[in-house]
Amino acid sequence: MTGILKTTEKNLMVFTGRAHPGLAEEVADLLGTGLVPTSAYDFANGEIYVRYEESVRGSDAFVIQSHTAPLNEAIMEQLIMVDALKRASAKRITVVLPFYGYARQDKKHRGREPISARLMADLFKTAGANRLMAVDLHTAQIQGFFDGPVDHLMALPILSEYVREKYGHEQLAVVSPDAGRIKVAEQWSERLGGAPLAFIHKTRDINRPNETVANRVVGEVEGRICVLVDDMIDTAGTITKAADALMADGAAGVVIAATHAILSGPAIQRLKECTAREVIVTNTLPIDEAHDFDKLTTLSIAPLISRAIQEVFEDGSVTSLFDGHA
Amino acid sequence: MTGILKTTEKNLMVFTGRAHPGLAEEVADLLGTGLVPTSAYDFANGEIYVRYEESVRGSDAFVIQSHTAPLNEAIMEQLIMVDALKRASAKRITVVLPFYGYARQDKKHRGREPISARLMADLFKTAGANRLMAVDLHTAQIQGFFDGPVDHLMALPILSEYVREKYGHEQLAVVSPDAGRIKVAEQWSERLGGAPLAFIHKTRDINRPNETVANRVVGEVEGRICVLVDDMIDTAGTITKAADALMADGAAGVVIAATHAILSGPAIQRLKECTAREVIVTNTLPIDEAHDFDKLTTLSIAPLISRAIQEVFEDGSVTSLFDGHA
Amino acid sequence: MTGILKTTEKNLMVFTGRAHPGLAEEVADLLGTGLVPTSAYDFANGEIYVRYEESVRGSDAFVIQSHTAPLNEAIMEQLIMVDALKRASAKRITVVLPFYGYARQDKKHRGREPISARLMADLFKTAGANRLMAVDLHTAQIQGFFDGPVDHLMALPILSEYVREKYGHEQLAVVSPDAGRIKVAEQWSERLGGAPLAFIHKTRDINRPNETVANRVVGEVEGRICVLVDDMIDTAGTITKAADALMADGAAGVVIAATHAILSGPAIQRLKECTAREVIVTNTLPIDEAHDFDKLTTLSIAPLISRAIQEVFEDGSVTSLFDGHA
Amino acid sequence: MTGILKTTEKNLMVFTGRAHPGLAEEVADLLGTGLVPTSAYDFANGEIYVRYEESVRGSDAFVIQSHTAPLNEAIMEQLIMVDALKRASAKRITVVLPFYGYARQDKKHRGREPISARLMADLFKTAGANRLMAVDLHTAQIQGFFDGPVDHLMALPILSEYVREKYGHEQLAVVSPDAGRIKVAEQWSERLGGAPLAFIHKTRDINRPNETVANRVVGEVEGRICVLVDDMIDTAGTITKAADALMADGAAGVVIAATHAILSGPAIQRLKECTAREVIVTNTLPIDEAHDFDKLTTLSIAPLISRAIQEVFEDGSVTSLFDGHA
Amino acid sequence: MTGILKTTEKNLMVFTGRAHPGLAEEVADLLGTGLVPTSAYDFANGEIYVRYEESVRGSDAFVIQSHTAPLNEAIMEQLIMVDALKRASAKRITVVLPFYGYARQDKKHRGREPISARLMADLFKTAGANRLMAVDLHTAQIQGFFDGPVDHLMALPILSEYVREKYGHEQLAVVSPDAGRIKVAEQWSERLGGAPLAFIHKTRDINRPNETVANRVVGEVEGRICVLVDDMIDTAGTITKAADALMADGAAGVVIAATHAILSGPAIQRLKECTAREVIVTNTLPIDEAHDFDKLTTLSIAPLISRAIQEVFEDGSVTSLFDGHA
Amino acid sequence: MTGILKTTEKNLMVFTGRAHPGLAEEVADLLGTGLVPTSAYDFANGEIYVRYEESVRGSDAFVIQSHTAPLNEAIMEQLIMVDALKRASAKRITVVLPFYGYARQDKKHRGREPISARLMADLFKTAGANRLMAVDLHTAQIQGFFDGPVDHLMALPILSEYVREKYGHEQLAVVSPDAGRIKVAEQWSERLGGAPLAFIHKTRDINRPNETVANRVVGEVEGRICVLVDDMIDTAGTITKAADALMADGAAGVVIAATHAILSGPAIQRLKECTAREVIVTNTLPIDEAHDFDKLTTLSIAPLISRAIQEVFEDGSVTSLFDGHA
Repeated sequence: MTGILKTTEKNLMVFTGRAHPGLAEEVADLLGTGLVPTSAYDFANGEIYVRYEESVRGSDAFVIQSHTAPLNEAIMEQLIMVDALKRASAKRITVVLPFYGYARQDKKHRGREPISARLMADLFKTAGANRLMAVDLHTAQIQGFFDGPVDHLMALPILSEYVREKYGHEQLAVVSPDAGRIKVAEQWSERLGGAPLAFIHKTRDINRPNETVANRVVGEVEGRICVLVDDMIDTAGTITKAADALMADGAAGVVIAATHAILSGPAIQRLKECTAREVIVTNTLPIDEAHDFDKLTTLSIAPLISRAIQEVFEDGSVTSLFDGHA
Repeated sequence: MTGILKTTEKNLMVFTGRAHPGLAEEVADLLGTGLVPTSAYDFANGEIYVRYEESVRGSDAFVIQSHTAPLNEAIMEQLIMVDALKRASAKRITVVLPFYGYARQDKKHRGREPISARLMADLFKTAGANRLMAVDLHTAQIQGFFDGPVDHLMALPILSEYVREKYGHEQLAVVSPDAGRIKVAEQWSERLGGAPLAFIHKTRDINRPNETVANRVVGEVEGRICVLVDDMIDTAGTITKAADALMADGAAGVVIAATHAILSGPAIQRLKECTAREVIVTNTLPIDEAHDFDKLTTLSIAPLISRAIQEVFEDGSVTSLFDGHA
Repeated sequence: MTGILKTTEKNLMVFTGRAHPGLAEEVADLLGTGLVPTSAYDFANGEIYVRYEESVRGSDAFVIQSHTAPLNEAIMEQLIMVDALKRASAKRITVVLPFYGYARQDKKHRGREPISARLMADLFKTAGANRLMAVDLHTAQIQGFFDGPVDHLMALPILSEYVREKYGHEQLAVVSPDAGRIKVAEQWSERLGGAPLAFIHKTRDINRPNETVANRVVGEVEGRICVLVDDMIDTAGTITKAADALMADGAAGVVIAATHAILSGPAIQRLKECTAREVIVTNTLPIDEAHDFDKLTTLSIAPLISRAIQEVFEDGSVTSLFDGHA
Repeated sequence: MTGILKTTEKNLMVFTGRAHPGLAEEVADLLGTGLVPTSAYDFANGEIYVRYEESVRGSDAFVIQSHTAPLNEAIMEQLIMVDALKRASAKRITVVLPFYGYARQDKKHRGREPISARLMADLFKTAGANRLMAVDLHTAQIQGFFDGPVDHLMALPILSEYVREKYGHEQLAVVSPDAGRIKVAEQWSERLGGAPLAFIHKTRDINRPNETVANRVVGEVEGRICVLVDDMIDTAGTITKAADALMADGAAGVVIAATHAILSGPAIQRLKECTAREVIVTNTLPIDEAHDFDKLTTLSIAPLISRAIQEVFEDGSVTSLFDGHA
Repeated sequence: MTGILKTTEKNLMVFTGRAHPGLAEEVADLLGTGLVPTSAYDFANGEIYVRYEESVRGSDAFVIQSHTAPLNEAIMEQLIMVDALKRASAKRITVVLPFYGYARQDKKHRGREPISARLMADLFKTAGANRLMAVDLHTAQIQGFFDGPVDHLMALPILSEYVREKYGHEQLAVVSPDAGRIKVAEQWSERLGGAPLAFIHKTRDINRPNETVANRVVGEVEGRICVLVDDMIDTAGTITKAADALMADGAAGVVIAATHAILSGPAIQRLKECTAREVIVTNTLPIDEAHDFDKLTTLSIAPLISRAIQEVFEDGSVTSLFDGHA
Repeated sequence: MTGILKTTEKNLMVFTGRAHPGLAEEVADLLGTGLVPTSAYDFANGEIYVRYEESVRGSDAFVIQSHTAPLNEAIMEQLIMVDALKRASAKRITVVLPFYGYARQDKKHRGREPISARLMADLFKTAGANRLMAVDLHTAQIQGFFDGPVDHLMALPILSEYVREKYGHEQLAVVSPDAGRIKVAEQWSERLGGAPLAFIHKTRDINRPNETVANRVVGEVEGRICVLVDDMIDTAGTITKAADALMADGAAGVVIAATHAILSGPAIQRLKECTAREVIVTNTLPIDEAHDFDKLTTLSIAPLISRAIQEVFEDGSVTSLFDGHA
């Protein structure tokens, strides 16, 4: 037969944008390699420039970027990085999103709105992404927005293990700050030995129609340490009011746990001042050192991401990391 | 200028598959036109044949098919109808889905599952659909699965208006049979003058771990007529147990309301035998006459669909039918 | 250079839907592997659920499904299986179609018809298929309907070898039941040492215009064993009338040979009762044991399919199995 | 409502490449308009340049080009014309192919061949074509190669009407020069009052294996005027040998009829010298005046094409021109 | 015929993002309509929210956004606006880019760079754009990056007319600040009655290799008013050095003219301090009032854009605005 | 785990069309392999037929074709070759274009023109090309026309090395024949030790408006050997006039260097007769032996192409061949 034969090799390469390089470095370290040296800077008018300093031809590329403020910069930089990889003949491009921007705009709430979460999936596809990897999507349906494989990682085992070790000897309750997210609380409850569930119900009291919205605690929380769980903490308004309502209802204490620490605007102040005794998050988003505060505990998501990348590279199973759940 | 000028006209044409022709006829009647005469039959080996008996060139085509049993037949027939329209030069093709099949498989619940709801959206796109119109999608995120406009219609105004007229003078409560769907119950509550909310919580009792799952009613239902609401009734197991639990907790009566009456397997029997006094559904799916029973009330969805088609055809606003909600 | 190098391996995995598992098992056996364990069942309302019980990441996947009754179920199941493979990061997905449904609707016979055979090709592409493998397509042009490689396998060597061994010592003629398919008969003739050709011509007799359509035998069949060949036997009307016409014209005997045994409706009865002495088919479609009858001979297509899969997996040549013909 | 309203008009514009401008002019004349003035020339190295001299914005554009020698030039010019229309904001682009090049390569005859007929369909789609219109495709399956509407026009009524008027009073037979194309002969037979069918069978005589291929006439032709029909005449080898075989078998005369007069290489000489008394073709391809010869009759296809364009423009029915056949 | 006929109307609607609303208002005013009321704001974490306050169904939508700082915000907002229009059933979406971001990254200057200008075109296509309209693209080849019609508008007539009226009575020269852009200077020269050309040549002096780069004036400028022309002024380094070099070479005066006033970083200061007597730009980008300075003259591009939109809406000719040039 | 494991191999295969087989043979030789045996011929009516005589399944295929006269034949043949490879399961297809046809039509120069260079990129993509490799594109922006990796090779090192060796000891100047291409001349200057730049400026003299266009030399050329550089020589009108103008301005001699020797029409005659002493080109295009002439020097591009193919096959770096420039 005509031609030149050669055994095929694949090369795992890890790339990072400028949004949250610390996390990417940690991931690369755990994988036992370095980040691919990359030039990236902004032109005077705000245009982003990217170039890789090494050949990426034929690589199995993982491009890590967390969508943190300035969020649109972070997304555009990642799109440009993917385009550069595509044009430089990377063999497979996986976009790694510790935090997926615009995930909350996952449907039209009213007429003539965009579905930005779908748009993001399409933009990454267009730029050249073959696969997505994301941590705790706001709704699991977002997996279906991307036309290709999506690895959906869950921080729950990391967060719940920490809580179990530290508070497992106490009387616990798992509380959702919102009726719409109680499914997540159920998973927590299972992990914490079947701790009872409760949640906060925002409602106008039908019997006193002129009064404003109240946070009503539904479920038994009295005398218990309440683990208040959510996927993200943005401005922290809802969750801190929930904490206060729990304490008012007789809880023995409140611990807040969430994957994504967006911590916009008044969030830090509110968290500091609220009645919760500890706030547990992961580092899917960078946390400004200046914003750190005593009761904030940050667990690293890097071991999870690096393990998932390893499985993908070696054709193993990612869902095996979560007992088959996806 | 060279050429032949002509004022453009558009022609609204309504088509139906064989799954639920009665609904399509009602819609066409309300629009003031007839269904486009169509030949459709199965070959001996099960292959479906479709042909339109009139020119459809340049038409603004609406293809109505409800995904009822045999469900895969119904979907394939509609795909084939869309293909035939595309090849026959229809100008715009809107797929009308009173019930969207596979909507519950909208994410991977575990690894190595399909996302069939996204697949369906892609199949219709591939066949040639330009737009989708659907009634009460299982999750609103499915709108984002289709790459194009989706008109999402809500049966809520029709169902709630009926309940308000018939039961509005009594003490009501709105109950969700499942913690995951309480958002819909909230919309019902608003429509029913702020009726208090409750829901059924399936849980293992933490204090009696050896006992099986129980349906615990959360919220005040004693002495009230409970409106138990859901998007669909499939085998009716969950909802009839919920009704019974409500009565056991002292409810004055239970009324079940749901958009999609799938009514598979034991559903009819269960509904007949449960403690609910009335079961209110729409005709998004055909209801076998033999399956009709005394306490079943069926409201027609045809006026809503025909009005929405009219708005689409005349470039009006569909969300105006729902006060801007989508 | 940055990164982690690893020699690439590929993994051949064979999957089957529920339409004709016996054939798939035989294929897997011949390849020396097992079928990938798969959960598949129908929900109460007819929706199909599929999940693979093992990691399929990086696999070279072959999904075998024959489009047998209920045919639209079989197609939809295969589409859903492909979607699940795509989302589970299979590296390459080959759809294996022992019988390709809707192949006869390969053009518009009249205005406003679909071209369902093209639609099927597009649906599989959309679901995620990279390649197709099919046995004896109704027209070879269907290869061009799929945007990618198609391996077109021919049962002719298997069928003709059987006939040659059993009847080769007799005076043979090869007969086409239809003027449109005589090209296939020519290939048979070559395989059978240049046996003379004949065919059945359905026509109104110009000299007796009021009489109905007659099956006129064209060619010399007197005293010969006629091998009546076609690609499929559906209701068996045409082919059994052809057999009877041949006997009426003095044939010494008739043997029917066809690849696809659809055997719809009255087919079994007609075949049993017709004058043909043997009916030879392959198992591209499952044959109900209850439908088996004395003169039916079924040859296995599994060795051909397994050999072709092997060649595809090992980058060999599939057309080498057919002396270069495609 | 915000915005500026305006009644929409559409503008039919007809364009031609340089392959066969006479036909396009005739079509435009019959439509009652002129061809859009177009600059088109070749650069010194063979690159084609095209520009329209008038605005084509918003037009319903029909681009007529017959794929005649130099055939690849003709195709490339048409692709470039379509690209220019797309970029100049034509609203809808219909590619009109009186003769569709590469139609005979509609499948892989052997391994590692292209399917050029599908490739052509895809190239036109890529350039920007929304629709195709073609006359007498080599196989009807080619309709399915294009992802969009195809208007398939048939010259049969034009050709058969001419034959009926001129030869209808004589004893006719319809003859196919090839066993593979007898379906077309059947349609001729119907049009000619049920004239008997015959065809030429190229075969090695089984009884005299050392002799070469012979043209055997199958069917009754003695004393009849044989209408020898095909879709195209390329080098005219097959058809002239068929004519001679018919005369040798006692035919009273032979008339050749075909849609596409490719007339390559020795075709003219062969036709002149063969025993056929008349050769009837259409002008789907240009016929060099120098190549004209006494017994050649050319019927214009322009009325058919112009009528079809009219129907398409006015959203009428094209298949109505052929009693519903497509 | 079945169906409901209706004459088609189209509705021109103009939309603006938040980057440069003043220009869009001016355009809408000139068209005689208002901007479509739109809600747009940033969430706390930087995600952009957009919603239209009126139905846009069936509209011919023009979405104006200039890519000004923060540039990636502006691009993302426009993408989201297009997505919202697509999902709200706009009939045709034209993206209007007074300034096209990333236009300078129109090729790989070195290996492993992105081609961001192509990426932007693809992103807009993916979001749903049918057409692009842009003013003075950095290179005209960018037209070819978008798969669809591009209207390329030129500010040259506006700028050159102003210069001709004000300075036409003097001895002029047209100067390019860069050897690569002298083609534009040639067009200026034609517009200014054939004024002689010159340009600035940045080069290491071959005879004095140790000296740094110098700006050498090539062409006759002595005693002339030099019109220094470019497509954009970013940091103004090159152009102000060019102005100084011209004065040093004996020019009687320098007038700077450019379409896009990016004016990043030190630009204002440099322009104020340089020897040019007037700086003429258009308002394709917003100019901060605080940044205004005495010798800055801003001409409005709005009349050109509104005229072009009018031509597009009414199927007129856009290139007629530029004597056929594109 | 179920399945059959196998180490993956890749196979480099080189293919050529019929336009310039000598170059492809040279490339294959340098790679140490042969060209894949291929049948290719024209049918009587000009349709091209292609078939590979060996299995190409799984290959890393490089299809070399230079777009030489008859240019549209060459392009169509290459498209058909790519289609055949795609359908024969080649793993990756790289189109190698020593000369990229239609590169000069890279934008709309006037309204209603095509952008043929983009169209070519899209046609190759549609046929199945995964990558492009090209030598000295007319404008580098063409890289952005292809949706995938483009390897852009430069002949500059080959040409300039030859010039440096032969003329490096003389006083040189680098001259561009056109103001628009001086960037290339700058790169030459760098390679030739900083030789001074000049160029030819075609202009109407403003002081003598009635006189025709003149070729004005800009820059110091007196007494120097002028290296007149361009990307291609088509009809050679511009470049030979430039050579004469240089000599008229006192140049000591002129050497012409260009990558692509199109040499259309009067080119040979003009080059023979002009004042240049040597014309240096590469063999990206075939040069008819009859067209060879004394002062023509042809350098082979094959070593560059074979080296680049090697790098692509082995996942090395192509830009490393050009010090990182792309």
